[in-house]
Amino acid sequence: MSDANELIPPKELLRFFKEENDFIIATHVSPDGDALGSSLALSMALESLGKKTIVYDKDPVPEFYKFLPGSERFTDSLSNFINPPLLAKEGKGGFGNLILLDCNDAERAGIEKLQFTSSAVIDHHETVRDFGDIKWIDPKSPATGLMIFYLIKELGVTVTKEIAVNLYAAIAIDTGTFRYSNTTPEVLHVSAELIQAGADPSYIAENLYETWTDSRFRLLLKVLNTLEIYNDIAITHVTLEMFRETGAAIADTETFPGFPRKLRSIKISALFREIENNHYKISLRSKGRDVNVAKIAEMFGGGGHRNAAGYKIRADIKAAKEALLKAVKE
Amino acid sequence: MSDANELIPPKELLRFFKEENDFIIATHVSPDGDALGSSLALSMALESLGKKTIVYDKDPVPEFYKFLPGSERFTDSLSNFINPPLLAKEGKGGFGNLILLDCNDAERAGIEKLQFTSSAVIDHHETVRDFGDIKWIDPKSPATGLMIFYLIKELGVTVTKEIAVNLYAAIAIDTGTFRYSNTTPEVLHVSAELIQAGADPSYIAENLYETWTDSRFRLLLKVLNTLEIYNDIAITHVTLEMFRETGAAIADTETFPGFPRKLRSIKISALFREIENNHYKISLRSKGRDVNVAKIAEMFGGGGHRNAAGYKIRADIKAAKEALLKAVKE
Repeated sequence: MSDANELIPPKELLRFFKEENDFIIATHVSPDGDALGSSLALSMALESLGKKTIVYDKDPVPEFYKFLPGSERFTDSLSNFINPPLLAKEGKGGFGNLILLDCNDAERAGIEKLQFTSSAVIDHHETVRDFGDIKWIDPKSPATGLMIFYLIKELGVTVTKEIAVNLYAAIAIDTGTFRYSNTTPEVLHVSAELIQAGADPSYIAENLYETWTDSRFRLLLKVLNTLEIYNDIAITHVTLEMFRETGAAIADTETFPGFPRKLRSIKISALFREIENNHYKISLRSKGRDVNVAKIAEMFGGGGHRNAAGYKIRADIKAAKEALLKAVKE
Repeated sequence: MSDANELIPPKELLRFFKEENDFIIATHVSPDGDALGSSLALSMALESLGKKTIVYDKDPVPEFYKFLPGSERFTDSLSNFINPPLLAKEGKGGFGNLILLDCNDAERAGIEKLQFTSSAVIDHHETVRDFGDIKWIDPKSPATGLMIFYLIKELGVTVTKEIAVNLYAAIAIDTGTFRYSNTTPEVLHVSAELIQAGADPSYIAENLYETWTDSRFRLLLKVLNTLEIYNDIAITHVTLEMFRETGAAIADTETFPGFPRKLRSIKISALFREIENNHYKISLRSKGRDVNVAKIAEMFGGGGHRNAAGYKIRADIKAAKEALLKAVKE
């Protein structure tokens, strides 16, 4: 396999991995398959080289991602791992080497108040903030998982079945299982290699898309029944009451904003999720290359990708929807 | 690219294509993306070699498949194409060379009453009937489109963008866009090659999955509201009344039986579609490798694949459902 657009990890990042021995791998809150799969694959790869890793997420691993091999590695507390030498030297709690994955801002991982000896960032998001001593941020990469694949190869690690499943899931979720515009020949060649290394596409797809609980399914029906259409914009919403009625959790709604995209007339789909009274989290999805929803999310202080982005707003539902419709017009 | 399990067209089939000059390419009624894309790709390939082709389906091309390049080639009438020499010789209406695609039974294409000079069958279905002078039937192939890809290469035809789009769509639809268990490394390598030849994965996925009419979306909501669950079997149904209320057409329901598979607890999903009073067409979908729904469909005189099959039954809805539940138990 040789693709012109292979991703090449920077030399200083490779040096960082070779020279250091202990790493805290952290990823963003509300972790998705790319965040989780990339973190676990990198942890396994580094440990196969005799390194020590801690895998951190502020939020717990969602139930339907627990099929990812090694998902039990995730911890939601770092308090046991304060680095004593650093603590002595600086007279305060400190941590060793950070690898921030699938985001490029300490705040997105909920670790903005912590001190690290050094930090590396590996990410593919469009919205870039200023964080990290070593940065490998490539918005052209369809998934952080693809970057980790090349990184692991460069480090000379054999892709085991467990690593393959994690990377395949990471790439699958961020390319809509090869349906989004970021599905390049390279993505398919690498995914084929991951199948050969032991990843089972239907097992992974079933775990990603077909392990819904009854309550999640009932919540989807309720949400779809809220559908409003304004020209080429579809708006759905989910209230705290609907969560209570169905017993579904917030993580259950991850794929919901994608559904109204099925409609031919729709270019943008927005799901308004009630966090608390007059406080909403909005997930945006767009079709094709015409609309960059990351730009819309940035207008409200959020961010993301061209076809998938999000932000939060404090307003009542009516004002929140109107603000979005106005922003889209601009 | 070299995969051990490459499909190899039989020599007599290649000879048939090289020696003959006129072909009628026919595929099954209610054509899906594999039937349509394979037929169009083969027609284009043969015409680039200076051959003449007629592309036939008894049913019209569904609206949402009209994005397939060359879809206007399809005719639903063969009456203009009766072969005069044959007619003179045999004293009756006759046709030249038939290529039957994505099915292996003349009846499935609605041409069982016609006479052909010779016939070739290219198909990947599990249920095989006795038809055709030359047969290339390989149930191990994920899609007829993949077989056509290798056939075209063997014939020395360059894969144009138009051919690539048709073959990519064919392979995509029959592998659930790379989510089913028939997604092999070979499928991904070939699909990568088709992208390089000009197929756009997101354009194709959007046309396949995201060009729903409002009425189709409303029908889906109605159908999902009929969901009944019996252990690991999900049953939904659609009545003639529901078609009338929403203005949706039969072809709109093609993907509906897949939805209840989202539920973790479900292994088989069955959609009962009312054709007329006390007459139902049942579409079966299964998850994973545990259940072969082709075997269940065969018990009722139908057929299909391991994970997608169908049959018809004359009974009232209650008896029809009970018959299925009984068959699954066996």
